[in-house]
Amino acid sequence: MENKKENFSEWYNEIIDLSKLSDKRYAIKGMNIWLPYGLKLIHLIDDLIRNYSDEKNFNEVSFPVLISREQLEVEFEHVKGFENEIYWVTKGGNDKLDIDLALRPTSESAMYTMFPLWIRSHTDLPFKIYQIVNVYRYETKHTRSFIRVREIHFYEAHTAHVNYDDSEKQMKEYLEIWKKLSDDLCIYYSLNTRPDWDKFPGAVYSIAFDTAMPGSRSLQVGTIHEYGENFAKNYNIKYLDGNGNLNYVSQTTFGLSERLLAAVIGIHGDNKGLILPYKIAPVQVIIVPIPGENYDKIMDYSYDIINKLKAMNIRCDIDKRDFTPGYKFNDWEMKGAPLRFEIGGRELSDHGITLSLRTQKKKIKINYDDLNNIYDYLNMVNNDIKNSSKKFFDENLIFIDSLDKINEDKMVKLYWCGSKECSDKIENISEKAALGNIYSENSGGKCIVCGKDGRLSVFSRTY
Amino acid sequence: MENKKENFSEWYNEIIDLSKLSDKRYAIKGMNIWLPYGLKLIHLIDDLIRNYSDEKNFNEVSFPVLISREQLEVEFEHVKGFENEIYWVTKGGNDKLDIDLALRPTSESAMYTMFPLWIRSHTDLPFKIYQIVNVYRYETKHTRSFIRVREIHFYEAHTAHVNYDDSEKQMKEYLEIWKKLSDDLCIYYSLNTRPDWDKFPGAVYSIAFDTAMPGSRSLQVGTIHEYGENFAKNYNIKYLDGNGNLNYVSQTTFGLSERLLAAVIGIHGDNKGLILPYKIAPVQVIIVPIPGENYDKIMDYSYDIINKLKAMNIRCDIDKRDFTPGYKFNDWEMKGAPLRFEIGGRELSDHGITLSLRTQKKKIKINYDDLNNIYDYLNMVNNDIKNSSKKFFDENLIFIDSLDKINEDKMVKLYWCGSKECSDKIENISEKAALGNIYSENSGGKCIVCGKDGRLSVFSRTY
Repeated sequence: MENKKENFSEWYNEIIDLSKLSDKRYAIKGMNIWLPYGLKLIHLIDDLIRNYSDEKNFNEVSFPVLISREQLEVEFEHVKGFENEIYWVTKGGNDKLDIDLALRPTSESAMYTMFPLWIRSHTDLPFKIYQIVNVYRYETKHTRSFIRVREIHFYEAHTAHVNYDDSEKQMKEYLEIWKKLSDDLCIYYSLNTRPDWDKFPGAVYSIAFDTAMPGSRSLQVGTIHEYGENFAKNYNIKYLDGNGNLNYVSQTTFGLSERLLAAVIGIHGDNKGLILPYKIAPVQVIIVPIPGENYDKIMDYSYDIINKLKAMNIRCDIDKRDFTPGYKFNDWEMKGAPLRFEIGGRELSDHGITLSLRTQKKKIKINYDDLNNIYDYLNMVNNDIKNSSKKFFDENLIFIDSLDKINEDKMVKLYWCGSKECSDKIENISEKAALGNIYSENSGGKCIVCGKDGRLSVFSRTY
Repeated sequence: MENKKENFSEWYNEIIDLSKLSDKRYAIKGMNIWLPYGLKLIHLIDDLIRNYSDEKNFNEVSFPVLISREQLEVEFEHVKGFENEIYWVTKGGNDKLDIDLALRPTSESAMYTMFPLWIRSHTDLPFKIYQIVNVYRYETKHTRSFIRVREIHFYEAHTAHVNYDDSEKQMKEYLEIWKKLSDDLCIYYSLNTRPDWDKFPGAVYSIAFDTAMPGSRSLQVGTIHEYGENFAKNYNIKYLDGNGNLNYVSQTTFGLSERLLAAVIGIHGDNKGLILPYKIAPVQVIIVPIPGENYDKIMDYSYDIINKLKAMNIRCDIDKRDFTPGYKFNDWEMKGAPLRFEIGGRELSDHGITLSLRTQKKKIKINYDDLNNIYDYLNMVNNDIKNSSKKFFDENLIFIDSLDKINEDKMVKLYWCGSKECSDKIENISEKAALGNIYSENSGGKCIVCGKDGRLSVFSRTY
């Protein structure tokens, strides 16, 4: 396998091939096939997102993939942001369609033409929905699995509220959801309020979750947007308040994508392969039976263990393939299974288990009854992942106090006045773009470029 | 509510609106929005299909929605079947695309261009995959929710085998899956081998699962197809056998769609609303607390019950809305919840539960400890649904022995010689199309039209 530190890009592509997450040999470049193991992984991520959304009283819906040009052009400022990236359906059978239909690049215009039918009174608010669908971008840039693709697995939450105060509370609720999810994925990040010129088209402001990826670039893995009344005014979304007055709703959105999987692969993996946090591992415990005397009994014992684990809702399997144990060890390390059990003659006679954590070299001898504490071992793996992930993040987002250090091959924190001029200057020297002010970080300092008052901000090359 | 027997079509539309399954007011006709309750329902149906597929060692994948014209035209006989129904993407941003891209009408051409990369040797066979995705048809006919739409929620399984014998075995395995699924949905059906002119484009033969719907029409809810080597020869899908010879694979497919939901709604529902088999009911047990003295304790007791049910993996909820019990009873009958619990002062003091089955008028008094037998009550509901569903099916698929009776307002079984001529004659008189010979029914008889030797066949008007 490629060396992760030396050739991250090659390593990343190779690990996706070897662990059979997706196949990019499909006839349309940038549209990849989700293979069984990759699909299981993203479905497990979806399940977490669904649970956290449902906990906060969101309802799941599913809108059509097509959006008519009329719907899109209601709000032109918003559409302009996507204009060059939209796939257009123009023919049905052999007929030219009366109106062109877009493959959704995002669903504001699809949803907000319906909101006036659904939201009438303050008793309908807050209104909170989400969908997990594919969105489409006619990318002209170089594509890369899970990072930049033309068909994107996407979560989008949309809310409407009685006023701006309430939609601001929603923004905080999104951060609670994100905190839980990022903890499950063992990902560290910086919350950055995007500069005005880089916010979501139509938004009042946007906060991005930027993580540090190998390859000395940041990866935007999620965003939340405060829309205020901007969309409501264009799509005429009003409600009757308690006093009989019609008011515009205030809106927000929350977007996540398959980039979450890119981050998990890129940040946690090593030269042996994937390393998966247990909440998203399709196989949390793999049992490798070791051939030898009494092999029937070894298998029976392995099934005992599997049954016990399944009763505890652990995703587990016995590798019964006709390969050597060594091959199987390597294969499951490559697939990132958090825990491996070896079951051979000795384990059978001891009624024990030889346990390996994906994150540690040493083997641990445990007793059958220790299966009751299986989550302790799964959490040991998660803690190891978090420790190295935190270390990596901290090493790759460094504070600099002088423009001399801007070419450091990392994400940088620095004081910045917020002007486009100073940001352009930084980008010209270093190819590092302004990811924005760090959210809820109020310390002030002098702009590293012009010396005026500035706020702590993040700059980075990006994926 | 509309009367189901008198105005089925209106009743069907109204029940979908009232129970909030889908919204058809979207800007593009025939592309409907899945509302939360409808989406939960179809996801529960998907879960059953996934489980039964996984049990048979299928792997789930997900292919891109777009298929290039080149991929499609590899096998033109197949494509001709869809030619007039394909949505074509012809522009990306402001650029005309080099090659038109189809929104998948079905995925043979997408998948089979990849099969030669994945299938090399007999050890790769049988190869069994499925996906659950949306497919697209530019319908020019009148659309109807879940029955005829332009964006279709679709399950498609695809297999490849060493030879025709093995793919024939696969056809039988599909029937096992279908038997379990149709039992869960309490749907009765006829297995009909479609006439040659109505088989899937490119197939050797197709067997459809046709159910009887109100409105005196049949509804095709699923199909399985034997492809033999037809596609393999066009897409060049070969494998190396044990003797070093290259052979074409033999292939099959299995398709199901949101029409399963249409059948559940249309066949089981009554004038009070939906009636849902418990395996797909988003809420299997709804608790309606009855206001009165000790309401706090009534709520505590209701939560006790909910906790006990949740520990048994029952989908259940307490209706805490600010409505009268009577309103809530009607509302949950409309939504089709199989079981309703009323919990008031008397239930509290008795430590009992007043239970209503969606399918019966009488209320049953049970004890708290009877919750252990909750599946007995759920199965009572399923049995009631099956009894009335079976009765409806049997009454609506009748045998006729003379052409005089062809205009009976039902599906008919009759002897038919298999000729297009006789089938056309029947269709001209009655608008009833040939659904084909009944599968595994070998009794012979004289064709009802020409008097030649015939096989038992089904004719019907169709949705």
